[in-house]
Amino acid sequence: MKNHPNKKAFILANGSFPKNKALRTLLHDAEFLVVCDGAMRHLEALDILPHAIIGDLDSISPQLKAKYQDRIIEIKEQNSNDLSKAFFYCISLGYKEITILGATGKREDHTLANISLLLHYHSFAKVILRSDYGTFQTFAIKQSPHVIQSFKGQQISLFCLDPSVQLTSTKLKYPLNDLSLPLWANGTLNEALGTDFTLSSNKPTLVLVYQTL
Amino acid sequence: MKNHPNKKAFILANGSFPKNKALRTLLHDAEFLVVCDGAMRHLEALDILPHAIIGDLDSISPQLKAKYQDRIIEIKEQNSNDLSKAFFYCISLGYKEITILGATGKREDHTLANISLLLHYHSFAKVILRSDYGTFQTFAIKQSPHVIQSFKGQQISLFCLDPSVQLTSTKLKYPLNDLSLPLWANGTLNEALGTDFTLSSNKPTLVLVYQTL
Repeated sequence: MKNHPNKKAFILANGSFPKNKALRTLLHDAEFLVVCDGAMRHLEALDILPHAIIGDLDSISPQLKAKYQDRIIEIKEQNSNDLSKAFFYCISLGYKEITILGATGKREDHTLANISLLLHYHSFAKVILRSDYGTFQTFAIKQSPHVIQSFKGQQISLFCLDPSVQLTSTKLKYPLNDLSLPLWANGTLNEALGTDFTLSSNKPTLVLVYQTL
Repeated sequence: MKNHPNKKAFILANGSFPKNKALRTLLHDAEFLVVCDGAMRHLEALDILPHAIIGDLDSISPQLKAKYQDRIIEIKEQNSNDLSKAFFYCISLGYKEITILGATGKREDHTLANISLLLHYHSFAKVILRSDYGTFQTFAIKQSPHVIQSFKGQQISLFCLDPSVQLTSTKLKYPLNDLSLPLWANGTLNEALGTDFTLSSNKPTLVLVYQTL
């Protein structure tokens, strides 16, 4: 098993392909790029060669499958989706920082699943999901305030699945004071007042933070 | 207060505007249509006149605001999003069946919030969220099997927020047997084997069901 603790891996999933130029540049320049099989057609169109193509191979054309057979990793099991297959392949190689692109848009059930998987991935690596609209990242929040970078006017949404957690914020436009977020909608539509804000909680928890570009 | 128990209301939210022709026809033919302010530009382009334009009016152009001032309902409060403002306006008029379009796509925090609000709306009306990719609907599931219409090969995803709930299914490709869905990803990527399937649970709960078109 290789070990790449300081290197970053990128995963392209099979949702909406990024339109944002900066995100496409990330794909071009990625030092290690894994693509979920159905998304290989986007890379082919942009002449980007990934290091691995992973999935159950249900959604890649026979032409692309033949052309890139040297880098295809077929995983047939049905208990995880293609994003998870790609993620744990990167983990198996020792990557500790993983950026996920193309994980939202199109089928909404895939979007929901991929976003919620970030909570699962948190214990394995630092993971950032980036789209044309914003970024999702999971933070481990405790009683002492955790500082999260932002910019003034950045739209912030907070998601926390555990109804017994009460969150407190500083430097957000609509402050949270021992607030639970039983519905995913309750923590949305907030705004950063400056270059950072803080979150703390009544007990250790994971909070999914969405920040607009 | 009027009462329209047998009439259907439609809401257009400010996510991705539907490309699907059948969904656009629904908007054209709606007997009662409420639009979230930011989405009015789409209706204007298609020459569709809504019955009400609702929201905090932050995201509608001055031109459209002036042109349609006879049907604008401005609600400034910041504790609910524009979709909820539109929803409870329909509820206040007595509508009991509400179809929501344009509630997903674009900003992912809005998508998550709008989908999770379906669980909140369930006690007020029969609500269907429709997109170019599928439909979300909330069902009250109990110990006796609840029959849900489908078609053979339809992709099905199930979401249930309560980790103490155990779900059981029939006529799904990957059967659930007293299964909890602690992560939103766990109930995705299933498939209907025929024209219906059933769900039952160890205790009364709400299940969010996604079905592809």
